[in-house]
Amino acid sequence: MKAEIITIGDEILIGQIVDTNSAWMGEQFNLNGIEIYQITSVHDDHDHIMRAIKNAEAHADLVVITGGLGPTKDDITKHTLCEYFNTKLVFHEPTLNAITERFKHRGVDMNKLNRDQAMLPESCTILPNKMGTAPGMWFEKNDTIFVSMPGVPFEMKYLVEFELLPRLRQTKRTKAIFHKTVLTQGVPESMLAERIAAWEEALPAHIKLAYLPNPMAVRLRLSAIGDRVQVLKSEVESEIEKLQKIIPEAIFGYDTETMSEVIGRELVKQNKKLAVAESCTGGYISHLITSVSGSSAYYNGSVTSYSNEIKEKLLGVSRENLEKYGAVSEQVAREMVEGVKRVMKADYAVATTGIAGPTGGTEEKPVGTVWIAVSGPEKTLVKKYTFIGDQRDRNIVRSGQTALQLLRRMVLGEL
Amino acid sequence: MKAEIITIGDEILIGQIVDTNSAWMGEQFNLNGIEIYQITSVHDDHDHIMRAIKNAEAHADLVVITGGLGPTKDDITKHTLCEYFNTKLVFHEPTLNAITERFKHRGVDMNKLNRDQAMLPESCTILPNKMGTAPGMWFEKNDTIFVSMPGVPFEMKYLVEFELLPRLRQTKRTKAIFHKTVLTQGVPESMLAERIAAWEEALPAHIKLAYLPNPMAVRLRLSAIGDRVQVLKSEVESEIEKLQKIIPEAIFGYDTETMSEVIGRELVKQNKKLAVAESCTGGYISHLITSVSGSSAYYNGSVTSYSNEIKEKLLGVSRENLEKYGAVSEQVAREMVEGVKRVMKADYAVATTGIAGPTGGTEEKPVGTVWIAVSGPEKTLVKKYTFIGDQRDRNIVRSGQTALQLLRRMVLGEL
Repeated sequence: MKAEIITIGDEILIGQIVDTNSAWMGEQFNLNGIEIYQITSVHDDHDHIMRAIKNAEAHADLVVITGGLGPTKDDITKHTLCEYFNTKLVFHEPTLNAITERFKHRGVDMNKLNRDQAMLPESCTILPNKMGTAPGMWFEKNDTIFVSMPGVPFEMKYLVEFELLPRLRQTKRTKAIFHKTVLTQGVPESMLAERIAAWEEALPAHIKLAYLPNPMAVRLRLSAIGDRVQVLKSEVESEIEKLQKIIPEAIFGYDTETMSEVIGRELVKQNKKLAVAESCTGGYISHLITSVSGSSAYYNGSVTSYSNEIKEKLLGVSRENLEKYGAVSEQVAREMVEGVKRVMKADYAVATTGIAGPTGGTEEKPVGTVWIAVSGPEKTLVKKYTFIGDQRDRNIVRSGQTALQLLRRMVLGEL
Repeated sequence: MKAEIITIGDEILIGQIVDTNSAWMGEQFNLNGIEIYQITSVHDDHDHIMRAIKNAEAHADLVVITGGLGPTKDDITKHTLCEYFNTKLVFHEPTLNAITERFKHRGVDMNKLNRDQAMLPESCTILPNKMGTAPGMWFEKNDTIFVSMPGVPFEMKYLVEFELLPRLRQTKRTKAIFHKTVLTQGVPESMLAERIAAWEEALPAHIKLAYLPNPMAVRLRLSAIGDRVQVLKSEVESEIEKLQKIIPEAIFGYDTETMSEVIGRELVKQNKKLAVAESCTGGYISHLITSVSGSSAYYNGSVTSYSNEIKEKLLGVSRENLEKYGAVSEQVAREMVEGVKRVMKADYAVATTGIAGPTGGTEEKPVGTVWIAVSGPEKTLVKKYTFIGDQRDRNIVRSGQTALQLLRRMVLGEL
């Protein structure tokens, strides 16, 4: 099945917003075996919309139109659709009831513009929108399906997930699909590709692998396409079991999980407490840990020690080691992690000390040099990393993610 | 002048990347008085590219094509352009020299694909690309200008800024432009609009105002269009002077500055030191401060105190106040900020304690309740905020930005 996406509205054309809707739909449709032929962004203009729909119909089995709806601006879009499909606007009572209900719930008065949203093309199937006032509209003409939806991202996503895709599956024009993303950290993409090459090559033809790297993780997405979701699910999961044996230390989670969530879940299970001491990461690790709702149950806190004096005074790092080895050293990282664990009465701790750059590097300790220490109830481990590049933000993110990965493995008893 | 953007390549159509290039160009072109008529994303396919260019030519004075170039995939695009403009590929020596130079500099061997990048359409003007191996190409046909550029964002941006826009200005088809963005924090967009309504109405017709809100700030962009940049610059700056008198407390910087940079610059000037104590912001403020290169010159560090015990032990908050008023209270915020200032021997400090949510709220202290304290050499101020909504990430960002705004004003002696 081939689809074309048409987005209506000036915001994208003047660069006020980035068209993330099309990217999201592109990904969802491809995962469901629907190929995107073209994406076209047009103005809120009758002739322009007409021409775009006509061009799309010539090449696509499915034309998805987003935007140009909503209380103040749906006039042109709806009249244009009526003209294109040779129909007229009629009053749709269930839609008016849904709108009235929304306004009552929010204690706000409705105006004429809101009521007009219940005037909808007679020939279309209405797709109820539980997330907003403008419903989706499903038209069919010859062999092509046309769907018009509002452009507000969470409304559009709701309609695609709960109305559009289920209906397309009913038409039997799309296949069943299952996908699962494996999250890895610590092995560079090229090295990962080498290690899993044989596994990848042995994947059945209907299971595809995609590499999705970002600064936080290299994500491996497995997508299986076939007839029955349950079968696809067990096939994908059995492939992931094989993968776990090849790169056990690199996998930290699945799908939309974050490393902090995985660590938090395990600490809750063990009923243990965590503390953090940061130098080069400057608060970033603490920020990631506390971004998880419920983290106060296992997180005692952190010290960001940007000066040597704070390292001595709050974390108990010895002046001798600071003077002898410098703040960026194995000895200081070890004293930081053990110090913060003691001071904060925690069971686990992680510490970083390094040079994030772009300035501050020396020949012996160039920008990107980072010592990371993790400590648990039984032992402390200290490792040195040398990240390439002098971008401060990037070095902070990489140091933080690497530290969390070490912490995760320590908490899980893998180190 | 009307432009159409055509992006070539599968990555956007399968949702692997978000089309930020078109948004960036849309913004730049609009700022330069060029209206974007349509954005079209197409496959790396001869017929598809031909049709898209032809459709664009019918409506646009300028057709900008990005993507489909680069060592492994420029074959289709370049041959299609040659066919469309009725020309042929010829060897372009300056381009080969530039490519050779790049490879020599990086100590990497060139292959045939790299050398083929110097084969370029005979009839076009070559736009040298200092950021990569694929140059831009400028064609003219009847009254329309066509420009093809690589899709790598920093290469495209370089070519737009240093080749495309200067050449368009030479054709006298675009006007001179000057824009400056005023960064504000602490006044909601609707209230800001009310306060500056009279000033906005009095703006000369050739100076436009745009509101660009994000979770960190409400940005006000002034764009002036006319004949001479120097004149426009002084006009915009005189309008901004008037604006400063209307909302003096809300403006924290200009263009791409961050609040942490502004605070850091002032601390360097005063030769003063800063410390932070965080509860609900959990490390976010410290992360923002240390994201600024050179922050170690004025930043001593922070304590994230997620437990009451740490508040007592590391920051000297009294158990009595913790028990009597609770951790989220004016008294505790005051003790936190004065404690961290003392412990870290700083001149300035900022502290937060609140309920980020989504859980943990009570009737008396709902999710979004935050106490923020700032302290300087002479005084301490504590303020209560009640942010609406229970999104944890959003409440952390709003609390952090509000705290930095208070700190900025304290450091500048405005409080």
